[in-house]
Amino acid sequence: MEEIFRIQLDKDGTLPLYQQLAEEITLLISDGFLQADSKLPPIRKMAQQLGVNSVTVVNAYKYLEQKQLVYSRMGSGTFVSPLPVEHIPAPVASRNLRSFGGEVAVEHAINFSSTSLPHEMFPVDAFKKAFNEVLDREKGGAFRYMDSMGYAPLREQLCRYLDSYGIKTTVENVQVISGAQQGIDLISKAMLRYGDVVFVEKPTFYGAAGAFLSRGGKLVEIPLEQDGMDMMKLEDYLKLYQPKFIYMMAYFQTPTGISYSMEKKRRLLELAEKYDTYIIEEDNFCDFHYGKEPIVPLKALDYKNRVIYIKSFSKILMPGLRIGLMVLPKKIHQAVMEAKYTTDISTSGFIQRALEGYLRENGWEHHSEEMRKYGSEKYRRTLSAAGKYLSGLVKYGRPGGGISLWMELPEGVGAEAFCSRMLEKNVILTPGSQYDLSGEENSHIRLSFGNLTDDQIEVGLKRMGDTLREMGKG
Amino acid sequence: MEEIFRIQLDKDGTLPLYQQLAEEITLLISDGFLQADSKLPPIRKMAQQLGVNSVTVVNAYKYLEQKQLVYSRMGSGTFVSPLPVEHIPAPVASRNLRSFGGEVAVEHAINFSSTSLPHEMFPVDAFKKAFNEVLDREKGGAFRYMDSMGYAPLREQLCRYLDSYGIKTTVENVQVISGAQQGIDLISKAMLRYGDVVFVEKPTFYGAAGAFLSRGGKLVEIPLEQDGMDMMKLEDYLKLYQPKFIYMMAYFQTPTGISYSMEKKRRLLELAEKYDTYIIEEDNFCDFHYGKEPIVPLKALDYKNRVIYIKSFSKILMPGLRIGLMVLPKKIHQAVMEAKYTTDISTSGFIQRALEGYLRENGWEHHSEEMRKYGSEKYRRTLSAAGKYLSGLVKYGRPGGGISLWMELPEGVGAEAFCSRMLEKNVILTPGSQYDLSGEENSHIRLSFGNLTDDQIEVGLKRMGDTLREMGKG
Repeated sequence: MEEIFRIQLDKDGTLPLYQQLAEEITLLISDGFLQADSKLPPIRKMAQQLGVNSVTVVNAYKYLEQKQLVYSRMGSGTFVSPLPVEHIPAPVASRNLRSFGGEVAVEHAINFSSTSLPHEMFPVDAFKKAFNEVLDREKGGAFRYMDSMGYAPLREQLCRYLDSYGIKTTVENVQVISGAQQGIDLISKAMLRYGDVVFVEKPTFYGAAGAFLSRGGKLVEIPLEQDGMDMMKLEDYLKLYQPKFIYMMAYFQTPTGISYSMEKKRRLLELAEKYDTYIIEEDNFCDFHYGKEPIVPLKALDYKNRVIYIKSFSKILMPGLRIGLMVLPKKIHQAVMEAKYTTDISTSGFIQRALEGYLRENGWEHHSEEMRKYGSEKYRRTLSAAGKYLSGLVKYGRPGGGISLWMELPEGVGAEAFCSRMLEKNVILTPGSQYDLSGEENSHIRLSFGNLTDDQIEVGLKRMGDTLREMGKG
Repeated sequence: MEEIFRIQLDKDGTLPLYQQLAEEITLLISDGFLQADSKLPPIRKMAQQLGVNSVTVVNAYKYLEQKQLVYSRMGSGTFVSPLPVEHIPAPVASRNLRSFGGEVAVEHAINFSSTSLPHEMFPVDAFKKAFNEVLDREKGGAFRYMDSMGYAPLREQLCRYLDSYGIKTTVENVQVISGAQQGIDLISKAMLRYGDVVFVEKPTFYGAAGAFLSRGGKLVEIPLEQDGMDMMKLEDYLKLYQPKFIYMMAYFQTPTGISYSMEKKRRLLELAEKYDTYIIEEDNFCDFHYGKEPIVPLKALDYKNRVIYIKSFSKILMPGLRIGLMVLPKKIHQAVMEAKYTTDISTSGFIQRALEGYLRENGWEHHSEEMRKYGSEKYRRTLSAAGKYLSGLVKYGRPGGGISLWMELPEGVGAEAFCSRMLEKNVILTPGSQYDLSGEENSHIRLSFGNLTDDQIEVGLKRMGDTLREMGKG
């Protein structure tokens, strides 16, 4: 800083020097010259350069810290605070909706933006049986009003599912929801007050961010590393803000595909306890794990009841059911139930009853296994085609699960431009900007392979490679 | 006022007299001595009594008006403003949930609190056929993700339904929702900002009030008369606040059962246009009309696109479908669609498809007619039993539709106490306090007769009459 910005203090001025210094730094921050997380000069150096006592600098930094404009990390120095995001730029928001519409409308393109599984995989026959059994057994009773928490026998079945992933809970902690997105929305409704801060991963899922923002939440982004959030930064920011909750995905995160290490999961829980906050763990893809290591959701480690676990069944079963579950800490049961009531009274009792029947008759194992095998096969195919056509051009991790890859484009190739170019060649990709609250991310794309034939994967990736070469890369 | 409260002005004080007077009145309002809508003394009288110039009083009243503490009605004088309600008292909120739970749990009592229709009336066989047809035709495709606005062929069918009530609209204005409560919630999400004012009827439906409040809305109550809101007061308050919308039910209002006169409907639309606001018209019971007059929803008169129409199918079809519709002014399409997406992505596509098939095969007429006949018969029975057992004890209107009566208890009988007493006799009633934002209403009960046998209606009303007599009434 000291080389670029000349700070001028008026030693004969009426304002104390420390305050003058603080105001100069505030201006540099608000004008964007000092970015979030950039380090302020060490106290002595700053004092020396300005020709003031170091107490002046200490006081200026303290003053800025009180105003949440900077934070200090023990032994490392003082850093500029991140500014909470209060709005998503409009183009990003509407692009998301278009892309979502794309899942329905674009039939002939090779669509790497759909995170659905092919509907030929859906267990329709078994559900048909379950629907008819419910209708024959309950008749009109199947369509009565339903308890806002959900159908008790279904919640029992769901506890069995949870148990298979090491989540020990009981029926009264399980809330049935109309899909994971509703879960996020209900938690926001129940707990978020205007102006509250929520921590999210960077990059993160726009649907959740949109729900938080629509409740007047402010978002602070915590950078992701290969094994989860940057825990150092998380703690810095926890000292600075008091977030209502921390939103994350422990496995095959949207969009990066990363999974948290056991160490970071444990650390995250410790920090939530230490700074008295909750964690929202959203789980869409746990069931699609292709390695041999056991799956341990954050919730399975949650002895202190800090985790709100939200499970979608849209991927492992079928999106059109619009059913998911939440496991809730006892303290927030009542608030969430009331939020559910004023949101939509309850999730369809008919579908809840059918799902209960389906699970009772069929269990999870067989269908899960089939879906996992299917996903794993597509994953292998995609990696192999990527190796063939994109090697040396594009960088990507091997998430070991899920149905997407997060790819870094060669330097100088903008993701937005590349996606537009691919669209002309009838290949739909999702640009990374969609998962970036500032909308500025322009080096990554997300490639979802779950809903494509092997041929489409092959052709799509070949076209990507060709295009990159046309653009003078590789 | 002048007789009860002595206002003291300090003629030698530093504060101008008009401001002293304004502050005295402010204190009387904030201490609750001057209630909403009470009239301030006429200017001359006030001036005379205080021994000040009448300009002082004019200025004081103007000052209070600027601060929204009073409002003036041309030619009538100056009145105390209503204070917007920002929270529902906790006991009311939880009582609502208990009572809702009651619909499910209490099997042996005579339950006059359920607004469901008996599930034996639900068109289950026809729906069973529709569900199976969808599954056979679309297979897994029935469970794909669905456009957030809803299934287009269903929206076409819904336009036909709307047309039968004189609501001319087209598919792009129709949004499918997971029940009317979700409609209220979505509109709030799309349009309400923290601190915005919403006008509601007094008394009103707690579910809607809860949704508005949970979005940081402030509620202002407009008293209901026999033929709709007090239009004079509505305009007074429209001058005072700029409500984001006015929430109302044009037919068989919850809880009073009143319907708006044609004159008041027209006036309401004029005022919405004049003061640039929207009206949310919720319609749950239009189809249950027992008279010969044609039904004209507010939306059918809405040439200026001021009405957001929300239709529930929970009563006329079945609650467990969790499907309803909204007709939206074009200006708010996009915002509502985005709100729907971040709320639950879409309403179950499977159920939407089945409903479309059901409507295509069966139309509305036959089933509606059956439901109407059924409701009408119960209505007749209830009025006849009420005439027999409650005559001279209890006052009530004849709404000519719906499945509830709003009854005023004899003087000196508190609704809460009466409901408790009836509960001991195994009769469940809803106290009026449930529909009152202050929770203070204690003279009315709501009696819903849609889900009871003729015998239960007879026995229940007889027990009510006996109890009132035991309490020394009649």
